[in-house]
Amino acid sequence: MKIFNQISEMKAFIREQQASGNAVGFIPTMGALHEGHLSMVKRAAKENNIVVVSIFVNPLQFGKPEEADRYPANMEKDLKSAESAGTHVIFHPDVMEMYPEGYKTYIEVKEISDVLCGVKRKGHFIGVATVVLKLLNIVHPDRAYFGQKDAQQAVIIKQMVRDLNMDPEIIVSPTIRENDGLAMSSRNILLSELQRSNAAVMYRSLKKAIELVNKGISDCCRIKSEMEQILTNQANAEVEYISIVEAESLKEVKKIQGKVLVAVAVLFDSIRLIDNVTIEV
Amino acid sequence: MKIFNQISEMKAFIREQQASGNAVGFIPTMGALHEGHLSMVKRAAKENNIVVVSIFVNPLQFGKPEEADRYPANMEKDLKSAESAGTHVIFHPDVMEMYPEGYKTYIEVKEISDVLCGVKRKGHFIGVATVVLKLLNIVHPDRAYFGQKDAQQAVIIKQMVRDLNMDPEIIVSPTIRENDGLAMSSRNILLSELQRSNAAVMYRSLKKAIELVNKGISDCCRIKSEMEQILTNQANAEVEYISIVEAESLKEVKKIQGKVLVAVAVLFDSIRLIDNVTIEV
Repeated sequence: MKIFNQISEMKAFIREQQASGNAVGFIPTMGALHEGHLSMVKRAAKENNIVVVSIFVNPLQFGKPEEADRYPANMEKDLKSAESAGTHVIFHPDVMEMYPEGYKTYIEVKEISDVLCGVKRKGHFIGVATVVLKLLNIVHPDRAYFGQKDAQQAVIIKQMVRDLNMDPEIIVSPTIRENDGLAMSSRNILLSELQRSNAAVMYRSLKKAIELVNKGISDCCRIKSEMEQILTNQANAEVEYISIVEAESLKEVKKIQGKVLVAVAVLFDSIRLIDNVTIEV
Repeated sequence: MKIFNQISEMKAFIREQQASGNAVGFIPTMGALHEGHLSMVKRAAKENNIVVVSIFVNPLQFGKPEEADRYPANMEKDLKSAESAGTHVIFHPDVMEMYPEGYKTYIEVKEISDVLCGVKRKGHFIGVATVVLKLLNIVHPDRAYFGQKDAQQAVIIKQMVRDLNMDPEIIVSPTIRENDGLAMSSRNILLSELQRSNAAVMYRSLKKAIELVNKGISDCCRIKSEMEQILTNQANAEVEYISIVEAESLKEVKKIQGKVLVAVAVLFDSIRLIDNVTIEV
């Protein structure tokens, strides 16, 4: 497995690979790799000749610089698990390589960046869109993989790539869950044992939504209120939002119809977790 | 000469050309081609195997939709002059092809978009950056050519391409002038005979700046005040700005030092013209 820190060497390698007809799959990450990431690496290894994983904690998508510093990191473990899942290249630039002095350019995907997680995390999705655009220009993959766990991010990236006439195919990969249903996330390792066990409530609330829809209930008020009951009954869980939105436009819906996204954000003390399911009727 | 209206056919053509080793030169325009554009086409024809000219009046960069509608257009003449200057492909999409319903993504190059022309034309350079990024992604040129007449635009595009790790080389081509010094611009055909002759005052004011610097004067206040005298002595010319800025950062300077841009914007009744010279000491 190769490790590149420089944009120029990453670009040169990809140019060479693609000139010899190799398809490139790309999984952008902030490190702290878990089974969710690794499932995408394995899939990319099946669908492409070369798999690139980037590890870059993007300061632009955090409200405060400290938050980026606090983001979990374990480079040695990441390299091992990436390699054994089928990664050929790690792209691991530092902040100055990605945002040199005098950096000035930002991407905004309007409307869908200001809802759900965007309500509290102002500017977060400008940071996400900007770094992903840069990474896609650097790695120039045939296919790039994003997790369904970060559903809003995936919708925004797909919109950006379509709007800006970019070439990579964007593939959204299913959420991988722990045995109790908790969605895999790099943040989970920040949880205490108690918080970890409490956090399973998120998926229980989402399963309740599925259960209600399966029973023929389509009123979103009713569904959200039953979800809220489950979440608020859990000690030490503070609900940030419970939303049911149209899956592409992310517009809040009153009635389950077509493809919708049921999404929750919950704080376990200071640790903020998100999860979602899509329902199609 | 081929004419493509669809993004997909433009992309397919370029992919084929570049796969067979042909270098692509690109000149984005809003039509109403003049000698300034054609000098870039001729240069691109020397430096590349394939020359693409886009003709697209970008509604995003006008404050009001009427302004885009008022932009001069003469497609038949444009096609003839583009072809005789060496163009191989015209890319001429319509607005819905470039901005389909639900379009949401915008590029902002901060700081340098808010000065000079950006002071009065709010959002103008978001529109410019966004359309140029899209066009560069569609045409995927080896080299793209921009006129020095639109100096701020050229600086913004270079910054955007560098910041976003894009591949095309950005080439800035010298301003082409009429005999009396008026910079070639698509807007010049909107001028009455009298306005047209009055407009030559802009270049006279810029030449005064060069003359003063050559005499050893470096105080920008003094230079701008002598330029202002020339411009305000001209009947029916309303100065929007006279600025002397550092050539890359576009920050206003007090003393001529290094490479500076001397830029003016003047209204001749409702017709707004811009011009500039660079001075290096």
